[in-house]
This record gives sequence, structure tokens and C-alpha cells, in this order.
Amino acid sequence: MSLSSTLLENAVDQLATLPGIGRRTAMRLALELLRREPQEVIRFSEAIRRMRDEVRFCDTCCNISDEPRCSICRDPNRDPSLVCVVEDIRDVIAIENTRQFKGQYHVLGGVISPMDGIGPEDLNTRQLMQRVEEGDIGEVILALGTTLEGDTTGFYLNRKLTGSKVRVTMLARGLSVGGDLDQADELTLGRSIADRKPYEQLAKR
Amino acid sequence: MSLSSTLLENAVDQLATLPGIGRRTAMRLALELLRREPQEVIRFSEAIRRMRDEVRFCDTCCNISDEPRCSICRDPNRDPSLVCVVEDIRDVIAIENTRQFKGQYHVLGGVISPMDGIGPEDLNTRQLMQRVEEGDIGEVILALGTTLEGDTTGFYLNRKLTGSKVRVTMLARGLSVGGDLDQADELTLGRSIADRKPYEQLAKR
Repeated sequence: MSLSSTLLENAVDQLATLPGIGRRTAMRLALELLRREPQEVIRFSEAIRRMRDEVRFCDTCCNISDEPRCSICRDPNRDPSLVCVVEDIRDVIAIENTRQFKGQYHVLGGVISPMDGIGPEDLNTRQLMQRVEEGDIGEVILALGTTLEGDTTGFYLNRKLTGSKVRVTMLARGLSVGGDLDQADELTLGRSIADRKPYEQLAKR
Repeated sequence: MSLSSTLLENAVDQLATLPGIGRRTAMRLALELLRREPQEVIRFSEAIRRMRDEVRFCDTCCNISDEPRCSICRDPNRDPSLVCVVEDIRDVIAIENTRQFKGQYHVLGGVISPMDGIGPEDLNTRQLMQRVEEGDIGEVILALGTTLEGDTTGFYLNRKLTGSKVRVTMLARGLSVGGDLDQADELTLGRSIADRKPYEQLAKR
């Protein structure tokens, strides 16, 4: 695709580097941006540039933050002895949306994935160990995805934490709430049978 | 969705203004941009800002261009007496990719759409009339989409051009090349019967 304008071509090339955006979509986005007021487009490009230049990571939990410590770690109403380990900020948002968790987080910044060349040293595991050694953490919840990579990362962290005084837990696996049995996959259904619990314990919630 | 960083939130908000990109996708794109080198992200945001600030439109055909006249209008090998009227630059690219057309273009910048409040005066129709009056244009090809808006625009332009010395033509409608009859919609198939041509005229190509 050769365009009549190098400026447009550069913008399309750049937009097409984003994941899930091909050249056709990039072209559509570029033409939409061209239709906007110049001031609006400046706001658009500045928001992206400033995010990359000025964003920092929380010194404690490695979450994305505008300040040295993020708003969650600064919050005096949250329990610092309970730390939930997650892959990235999207998981923090998902858990916050449940309004069920009043502890703090630790954001790994990814999961162990030998296929992609990502090992434990590429994640914020060192900072987690430091928090465990220094602080008064009583429980570490491994809230990782139920994928091969998530499981590998959980296995690694559990082994590293064995021997320290913290309790290591992981999220329950079982049927989705509101889901029928025939819609659950075999692994999940099998797991929910193996992990069955006394009726009184589950049904009262 | 409340985030721990206003900078990230602004970038997500801006990305989510793009057509077809919701807040979840915008979040994914923002996190991907955060993972890149700062220099790369500066190139990204600069390419978009510069496009909007510096791009201009060809004085002749209203196509997007970096210079007062676009590369197609400047090309001495192209026939200025044959002008293909299209909606936007994507159509120019599509027709150029066929390598079948050696004339020039006229880019309307949209189609007449009363529902969206777009009338003929919002398009580059005045410039087209001026080209017809001034120049040595022999034929105007209406290469518009086969939608209600495209048809309305073609109807309007044909009426404006009736009385001038130019010949007005439109793209042929019929079966897609490589398509089976049972895959064509009824309107297209009906049209291809009504517009049937002598075998010798079509089959020899």
C-alpha cells in the first residue's frame, strides 16, 4: 500500500504496530484522527507520550502509580499483612471491582514463560521476597491465571516461599457462579468434584 | 474503572475515543505502549501529531498530500482528461492497487448523508465543478460505494454535470469475479441479469 502522503503513511505504520491492529484498521484510525480538530489530536498524542515518560511503579507493590507509593499501598484502611500476587494491573482492577479484598497487592509484571524467554528474574519476584523478609506479611494469595504459565509461576513462587513464615494460598477453582454444569469444561468440572466442600460451608454465602 | 494512575487513565481515555476501541482494548494497548522503550513511544505519538499538524490536501484533487499538488496529479504519465470521483483516500488506494486506472482522481471527502447532516456543500463538490469548467476533462467516472449514500451522491453529481460537455460514467455492477451464483445477493444477481452483455464483449478479457 503506497500512499500519497509520507506523513499519513508514518502514522498508519505506527498505529499498525499496536497488537490486534492491522494496516486496514490503522488506516481507518488515522483517517478518523485526521478528521478531528488539531487540538484534540495534540491532547491524544500528549496523553500517550506523558504516560510513557512520567508513569512510575509503586516502590512497594510494583503497581503502576503516579507517586512513589501507589494509592492502595498508602491507604491506611487496607491490611498490609495480606498480599495478593497478580500478573498485571488489569488483575488489580478486576479484583478491586469485586470489593471483596481489603489487603494489598504485588504486581509481578508478567508470568514465567520459557517460550517467550521470560524467567523469574524478569518479573518483580525479588521485590516480593524482600517484602516477605522485611515486613509483617502473614499470607500471600497467588491470584494467577489458570494457564500453564500461571501455574508455573505459582509453583515457582510457592517453592520460594516455603520455609518463610507466610501462609501461601491460591484462588479457588470450580464452577462459575451462574453457570450450568453442562457449560463447564471437563477439567473445571472434574476439579470442582475433587475440591467439593461441606454444604454448610459454601451455601451460606 | 478507577486506576491507580491518572496518567494511565488519561491515555486509556484517549485511546478509547478511537472508533471500534472500547475501554478494555484501550487498556491493553496502553499497557503494551508502557512496555516499550520511551523513544519508541515518542516516535509513535509524534507520527500522529505531525500527521494532523502538517498534512495538507492536494489543490487539484483534494487527496491527502504532503505538497500543494499530490504525486498522482503531478505524474505526467497520467491522463488529466479522465477523472475518477471517490469518497476518500482508501478508495484511491483500492483503485491504484488494481493497476487498471491511469487517469486522475477527485476525492470528495465523504458522501451525501442527510441522516448525518452531510450535504453537498460539506464535500469537495465545488472544486470538482471548477475542474470541469476550467479544465479539459472528457469523462468523469463516479466510483462511489453501492450504498444509499453513494447512490444519492452519484445522482446529485450526475445532475450537476448534465449540461456540461463531460461524459459521466459509473462503475459496472454485477457478479464478483470468482464468485458462485448462489453466493451473490438477489439485488446483485438481478442487476447482472438486467445488465447482461454480449458474450464476445465480456469473455475475451
